[in-house]
Amino acid sequence: MDAATIELPACTTLELALDDGVLRVTLNRPDARNAMNLQMVEELCTLFAALQDDAALRGSVRVVVLRGAGGHFCAGADLKSLAGAAPADGGDPLAALNRRFGTMLRAVEAAPAVVVAVCEGAVLGGGFGIACVADITLAASDARFGLPETTRGLPPAQIAPFVAARIGTSQARRLSLTGAQFDGLEALRLGVAHGAYASGVPLDAALGDSIAAILRCAPQANALTKRLLLNPDGLDLDAQLDDAAATFAQCARSSEAAEGIAAFMQKRAPAWAPPPRPKQVQT
Amino acid sequence: MDAATIELPACTTLELALDDGVLRVTLNRPDARNAMNLQMVEELCTLFAALQDDAALRGSVRVVVLRGAGGHFCAGADLKSLAGAAPADGGDPLAALNRRFGTMLRAVEAAPAVVVAVCEGAVLGGGFGIACVADITLAASDARFGLPETTRGLPPAQIAPFVAARIGTSQARRLSLTGAQFDGLEALRLGVAHGAYASGVPLDAALGDSIAAILRCAPQANALTKRLLLNPDGLDLDAQLDDAAATFAQCARSSEAAEGIAAFMQKRAPAWAPPPRPKQVQT
Amino acid sequence: MDAATIELPACTTLELALDDGVLRVTLNRPDARNAMNLQMVEELCTLFAALQDDAALRGSVRVVVLRGAGGHFCAGADLKSLAGAAPADGGDPLAALNRRFGTMLRAVEAAPAVVVAVCEGAVLGGGFGIACVADITLAASDARFGLPETTRGLPPAQIAPFVAARIGTSQARRLSLTGAQFDGLEALRLGVAHGAYASGVPLDAALGDSIAAILRCAPQANALTKRLLLNPDGLDLDAQLDDAAATFAQCARSSEAAEGIAAFMQKRAPAWAPPPRPKQVQT
Repeated sequence: MDAATIELPACTTLELALDDGVLRVTLNRPDARNAMNLQMVEELCTLFAALQDDAALRGSVRVVVLRGAGGHFCAGADLKSLAGAAPADGGDPLAALNRRFGTMLRAVEAAPAVVVAVCEGAVLGGGFGIACVADITLAASDARFGLPETTRGLPPAQIAPFVAARIGTSQARRLSLTGAQFDGLEALRLGVAHGAYASGVPLDAALGDSIAAILRCAPQANALTKRLLLNPDGLDLDAQLDDAAATFAQCARSSEAAEGIAAFMQKRAPAWAPPPRPKQVQT
Repeated sequence: MDAATIELPACTTLELALDDGVLRVTLNRPDARNAMNLQMVEELCTLFAALQDDAALRGSVRVVVLRGAGGHFCAGADLKSLAGAAPADGGDPLAALNRRFGTMLRAVEAAPAVVVAVCEGAVLGGGFGIACVADITLAASDARFGLPETTRGLPPAQIAPFVAARIGTSQARRLSLTGAQFDGLEALRLGVAHGAYASGVPLDAALGDSIAAILRCAPQANALTKRLLLNPDGLDLDAQLDDAAATFAQCARSSEAAEGIAAFMQKRAPAWAPPPRPKQVQT
Repeated sequence: MDAATIELPACTTLELALDDGVLRVTLNRPDARNAMNLQMVEELCTLFAALQDDAALRGSVRVVVLRGAGGHFCAGADLKSLAGAAPADGGDPLAALNRRFGTMLRAVEAAPAVVVAVCEGAVLGGGFGIACVADITLAASDARFGLPETTRGLPPAQIAPFVAARIGTSQARRLSLTGAQFDGLEALRLGVAHGAYASGVPLDAALGDSIAAILRCAPQANALTKRLLLNPDGLDLDAQLDDAAATFAQCARSSEAAEGIAAFMQKRAPAWAPPPRPKQVQT
């Protein structure tokens, strides 16, 4: 591993593989349908902190693909984790434990790399939350999305604001107050997912297309665009536009824009884009 | 009526029937297609205030079903009411009259019970407003939704912010600036409604399914989830997540969660759920 | 031109034609697929300032139709404009240049008349931005929408907040981080457009229907409704409802509402509505 590559944290609940700017993260507790325990939440927090550093220092990761092992994305919070809630500094240990989920979801949402979630099988509770903060969410048509918390006497506490941000307060209310479960096609209709595909080859092909599209976009321009859209400081519209103008000028003077505009004028791919895939020859 | 049951207010424009936690409210001015006059607005305000008290004291109502008598949901504000505007304390009586609609819509939206609107026939103006604040809105495919106010020289004043919150400012602008009218299928596509069904048996069956789904969710968890999603104090995201964590801990320690988690582990229905409906035998 | 009619600014990049309250604005740089240069941005700013004055003084324009010459709506910002960035007062000339796009988009959005965008061919970058601020956006089914900026090393800086306001942050992120391009039917599904039609007669007929619908709505009520929905002062919900009540009372006492309610009661068209179009006789 050379200095230009991110040092990935050691994980036990996640499998990590980096190849050509694409980091594949596999939620890896298949016996529990990848339900999130404390360990997984903390490993995701550590990983996404490392990705923030990578973006500032090296930019070796441009795309993060989140997927579950064994045919399920994530069945939600592992309820056994509740029993393991450690005493917090003077605070409520159960509240502190729950709050870490929200911190993790914010970290995934704010990743400077583009995050793609591939949602198969169970996409419930906390798994549903991750689907709602990814930049691109691809669903298997027969995946099972839902917010079952209230059927067990619990609120979808940390997840609810991210669901509302994704699909509006109205649908978030309906889904959580009925414990609704629905498939990938309905997830697409509601805006939880951006595409729905048959499992296997069609879903994998859609993932390949998404990765290729992202890699044709300039890394710095993408990271800055994402920050502008997330508007983390809650600027009002005029301040947002002022900030955007300064960001635009910074990009326009960068070597990235020089290359991008030159490539556009010369009708060629820019340096950051992967080589075009060979066209398939029909025989 | 025992002490564990809400005392329902006496109404002349509404018909009320409570059965097993489900309160059926019928807008009952069928000769005027249930157009809202002052009396109806005031009776709805009184009713939803009583539901707030009920939630705090008894929780005897878990679902409120709003429906219109005679095949129409509600044709809007009764324009004759304008003439009856009473002098306000030093203020503008017409403005005060209009403002009561907004107060009523906020009260329906904030109900701690889950509100289901069943929209048939005319769903116009103020009726459209109610459709936009219900937790679950079921439409007859051939219902007629619309905001006709501007065609009469009036703005959809109290309704507009709730329409924008439901389906976005863009669609709210288009609908109100064109006086558009559309059917239940289009209401589903726009997100005004959550489902659209043929009138009669299919619509009634969908209502039954919605009620059954709500009753499988825990009453306290539902009320708290709804409050978290409505975010009445306008908390920013981090404060929302802190509040949600405290709410989660409170629920997790309640007898409701103990029962819900036990039922989940034991693969049985929790105590608050209605008995499963017998499967229909095909003969 | 009489005193009751707006004095239209002289333009070189726009063609203007006013007829019976409908101002048709043609983006007119067909050799560049109507890409926006500095001149066009400034002319649009001047035009929409004149429309504000017109609304306050005369109300001679009730509908603005934005369309491109030569089969394209607008291919985005003319990149050659960047080279022409003039020194700003002590500020960054590139940032100042970029910022004008946002000022122009806000002016179009806030027009007191109803703005209809007719989107054919290329609807890219800044053209996409205009599509996102129009009150009604009609798309040709085969139009090509997209945000290609990041593929050239630039962020869609001034456009991004308007895209997010139109279709949500989630879709805005996906579209800009992938440089996605899509047709008019997908623009309808995403909510960028409000309708999609085959080019030619069907699209022109939809435009005619939209104009007719707008003209059936009262001019003052429409302008005030639009202002209420845009909520330019960022009022919270209760303050919005108070403001809306005062606006309602003002309208209800106007001659416009008197005519509108009388026409409704008498089942006739109000004075501001165009005469009904003759029904086509089938022979």
